[in-house]
Amino acid sequence: MTELWLIGIGTGNPAHVTLEGQRALREAAVVLIPRKGAGKEDLAHLREGILAEAGATARVIHFDMPVRDESLPYGDRVARWHDEIARRWQAALAGAPEGPVALLVWGDPGLYDSTLRIAERLAPRPKLRVIPGITALQALTAAHAIPFNTVNGAVTVTTGRRLRDEGWPEGAETVVVMLDGACSFQALDPDGLHIWWGAYLGMAEQLLESGPLAQVAERIVARRAEARARHGWIMDTYLLRRG
Amino acid sequence: MTELWLIGIGTGNPAHVTLEGQRALREAAVVLIPRKGAGKEDLAHLREGILAEAGATARVIHFDMPVRDESLPYGDRVARWHDEIARRWQAALAGAPEGPVALLVWGDPGLYDSTLRIAERLAPRPKLRVIPGITALQALTAAHAIPFNTVNGAVTVTTGRRLRDEGWPEGAETVVVMLDGACSFQALDPDGLHIWWGAYLGMAEQLLESGPLAQVAERIVARRAEARARHGWIMDTYLLRRG
Ligand SMILES: C[S@@+](CC[C@H](N)C(=O)[O-])C[C@H]1O[C@@H](n2cnc3c(N)ncnc32)[C@H](O)[C@@H]1O
Ligand SMILES: C[S@@+](CC[C@H](N)C(=O)[O-])C[C@H]1O[C@@H](n2cnc3c(N)ncnc32)[C@H](O)[C@@H]1O
Repeated sequence: MTELWLIGIGTGNPAHVTLEGQRALREAAVVLIPRKGAGKEDLAHLREGILAEAGATARVIHFDMPVRDESLPYGDRVARWHDEIARRWQAALAGAPEGPVALLVWGDPGLYDSTLRIAERLAPRPKLRVIPGITALQALTAAHAIPFNTVNGAVTVTTGRRLRDEGWPEGAETVVVMLDGACSFQALDPDGLHIWWGAYLGMAEQLLESGPLAQVAERIVARRAEARARHGWIMDTYLLRRG
Repeated sequence: MTELWLIGIGTGNPAHVTLEGQRALREAAVVLIPRKGAGKEDLAHLREGILAEAGATARVIHFDMPVRDESLPYGDRVARWHDEIARRWQAALAGAPEGPVALLVWGDPGLYDSTLRIAERLAPRPKLRVIPGITALQALTAAHAIPFNTVNGAVTVTTGRRLRDEGWPEGAETVVVMLDGACSFQALDPDGLHIWWGAYLGMAEQLLESGPLAQVAERIVARRAEARARHGWIMDTYLLRRG
């Protein structure tokens, strides 16, 4: 593998793909795709649709995602898992056509995604090209037709775990939360906070809720649980603003 | 105007446009475009190229951007200016074909952009549709092939003015700075900070610098001044990380 292209494909709407992404898919020699676990067939279809619409002629090569060794402490577990994924990419490419290898990355490759960190483990190190993609943050603010920031305001982008452990970030006005499996906004004092929540953003299943946190928190928790049970999986994110 | 579409076009690379953006441009009845001031012809060409590549058949209507009344205090000045822009949109549309009106918005319409706030002034209020676009933040991290966040880390997105006035945000690990006309990173203690800087991201003129802040700050200041003098304008942004 001499060149590796990480192509941001957006967050569920196949039309999030950029022209740059489409062109890269057409120019790639190989597209590496993880074989999906149960219940994520929707997402496998999305990738196939994106490749077809781009007119990609690349050889599609699948690899199996390893399972994490739950007996290891968290840091080691993730590091070993990334090592093993890098190893499987290289193994899967044995005998593949020469030329750029592409990976389709959900959203933008820079945002809460480990693909770049896995790519750093490859030896010899291929030339890396990153193609930006629409993130869940943009899909959220677009769906609600709201600004990300207030005028001259700062925004903190954080995770559900940090929000739970550390509370409202010191001095923050707007906070956007990703990777939250536990509706961690419930840990905050809702007074004066407004929330804009979205699940399955950009997809046919898209759900939106917004309002004063004190009034809508319960409804979000209930809708999230219900949707998750129905689909078997959920992806959601939200923006909180003071005042 | 019954429907207003804000279409994020990305940050200078015409291939940042998404398929969703392209389709909207094809379906719009009217595209409203500000007449450009001196020195920004490059950006006018970009818009024309995007419309042509999308195969847009919309009526293109230009409007003159008002000038800000510098005698007013800052808040009033901006509010009046937004009022006047909204008025000019409506005036420009007199006699325009019926159907959705599109505005091409730099980057993503939610991020440090006033178009949504101007649209809120329209009466009667049109139906708003926001189409997400690639932001300067993504263009920056993609150009450097770096992650936006550390593992489970938070990121503060802020402006040059705030960084100057308030210093390093309390507890932050990664800070991304936009709208900085003054290389405000010079106001920070550089010890332990790494910077990734980019100007004209996505464009042919793209400039990149990165390294320990203490080592590269001066070079960035010099390259920025030189590029700005040569082109007559500059847009730049940067990411700072501790450790
Ligand atoms: C591993 S991160 C990947 C983020 C992705 N790289 C991006 O740019 O959006 C996954 C998290 O992103 C958010 N997310 C991604 N896609 C989403 C969608 N379609 N709707 C709602 N949230 C989404 C959720 O918070 C989810 O936990
Ligand atoms: C008014 S804001 C608009 C941001 C835009 N809506 C976005 O999503 O990126 C303009 C600021 O964005 C950043 N910016 C926009 N385009 C850029 C580019 N091509 N290269 C570097 N910085 C850019 C600069 O910090 C600039 O001061």
